[in-house]
Amino acid sequence: MDLAMIGLGKMGINLVENLLRNENHVVAFDLNDDAEKAAAKLGAKTVDSLEEAVIALKKPRIIWVMLPAGKPTNETINKLSQLLDSDDIVIDGGNSFYEDSLKHNQILTGEGIKFFDCGTSGGKSGANHDGNFMIGGDDYETFKYIEPIFKGIAMKDGYLYTGKAGSGHYLKMVHNGIEYGMMEAIAEGFDVLEHSQFNYDNEAVAKVWSNGSVIRGWLMELAQDAFSKDKNLEHIKGVMHSSGEGKWTLDEALKLQVPTPVIGMSLMMRYRSLETDTFTGKVVSALRNEFGGHAVDKK
Amino acid sequence: MDLAMIGLGKMGINLVENLLRNENHVVAFDLNDDAEKAAAKLGAKTVDSLEEAVIALKKPRIIWVMLPAGKPTNETINKLSQLLDSDDIVIDGGNSFYEDSLKHNQILTGEGIKFFDCGTSGGKSGANHDGNFMIGGDDYETFKYIEPIFKGIAMKDGYLYTGKAGSGHYLKMVHNGIEYGMMEAIAEGFDVLEHSQFNYDNEAVAKVWSNGSVIRGWLMELAQDAFSKDKNLEHIKGVMHSSGEGKWTLDEALKLQVPTPVIGMSLMMRYRSLETDTFTGKVVSALRNEFGGHAVDKK
Repeated sequence: MDLAMIGLGKMGINLVENLLRNENHVVAFDLNDDAEKAAAKLGAKTVDSLEEAVIALKKPRIIWVMLPAGKPTNETINKLSQLLDSDDIVIDGGNSFYEDSLKHNQILTGEGIKFFDCGTSGGKSGANHDGNFMIGGDDYETFKYIEPIFKGIAMKDGYLYTGKAGSGHYLKMVHNGIEYGMMEAIAEGFDVLEHSQFNYDNEAVAKVWSNGSVIRGWLMELAQDAFSKDKNLEHIKGVMHSSGEGKWTLDEALKLQVPTPVIGMSLMMRYRSLETDTFTGKVVSALRNEFGGHAVDKK
Repeated sequence: MDLAMIGLGKMGINLVENLLRNENHVVAFDLNDDAEKAAAKLGAKTVDSLEEAVIALKKPRIIWVMLPAGKPTNETINKLSQLLDSDDIVIDGGNSFYEDSLKHNQILTGEGIKFFDCGTSGGKSGANHDGNFMIGGDDYETFKYIEPIFKGIAMKDGYLYTGKAGSGHYLKMVHNGIEYGMMEAIAEGFDVLEHSQFNYDNEAVAKVWSNGSVIRGWLMELAQDAFSKDKNLEHIKGVMHSSGEGKWTLDEALKLQVPTPVIGMSLMMRYRSLETDTFTGKVVSALRNEFGGHAVDKK
């Protein structure tokens, strides 16, 4: 099919390659010239503005927005609501917060434009090949129209129409919350091994666990890759950044009053890792000193 | 090779089938007659006692103990230390606590008997086909002698010699600790979905997540299976039993002072699930009432 890809970052450029391999025609746009050059090299038609991207497509136009969540996505979708015509189609494949997607749905459908919030998983390699997509949108008939796009670029059984608008990004949010918990659990296990009385080869352990164990899966395979490059991860600091989806999952759990202590703790451990010292630690030390005269480590 | 399987429970009987399929000769023993009949039907030679199992093998004898951890395994290994001769080989494929395995190693090697503590993963299906084995033992040369057994019954790259005695069961223990955390994380995610404003088909969600997503893996495939049988698990109570390995992982983390909050919390949530009401809940309710006059739910 014909579609435009707006945003040619790590995910966008790989999606362009995947789409082109699957016999789609892609109009590509990014503010970064090097990204556009890379897309052109892959066979995409590059343009210099959102307006030109819209002009380059025939109706009903399909525009895939693949930008960082928040302002970049929100502004682009607002602009598209003015540039596009009724029955055109917008897919937000980024990691937008589902409440933003509900707003985007309202803005776009107010203009007769169809909207799909598409959670994208599988990392850069998945974007490029055998990807994973969770697609929400109010108009199922239009979903069936664009379904061949997903069928081509997803792994077999690797895409799902999740229901009404917002449900795709909501599902991706929860997916990432689960991911936080799984990653922390795997990491804590290796931390115990690292401190144990035995001498384990982390790469060999991740490899044997990847082949037939109950805890096999893609994250364990990625652990094997990481340990193969740096067997005790000596070149990486244990600072765990996050990009919002774990927090949103916890926000949502709090809103719904669903106990999610492991997902919550995984997020808290990420925040803890960003600090070299903590005020909590100072307060507890001071209190131990106050009531029991226990020594404090002086700064 | 020739070996005896002591214990024909869910894991033992499947291992017997796997071993026989891979051209081993198996002497099978269990206190339960039905289990012995099942083993005989598969082609194993059944015997009526541990003593007979020992007599039925030629030297060096290989005895695989596949019994519940604790007393059944400990008593059997003590008996074997008296029945076997120097250079005979004992494999404990059960879930023994690694400190017990260190004791077993001492008892057996004191008699010149070789000991291997073998953590077995992959569930019943893995025991039957493409299993997963983590094998510790002090004598690497003897491991090379028995290696063909594991090569035959394990998934490709699905067995590992983990180092000295105790390291196999230790690794399996930590594997299970990770499993607790991964399972709780997955479950919490589905709990959020279940309470959300959207209508998700749990089976379809587990299926799409099993095909190309970052959180794909065997546990997600098992979730898909479970939801395919009972889409909202209406026929299962949320009571989460445990069989010790999660607790041992936490015990070990406490001994080593390694922070493992997610594995710990997963274990605590299992314990919480065993109670219909909690004394913690009573105390907190009473205190809220004491200081603020907040209503308590009366029994």
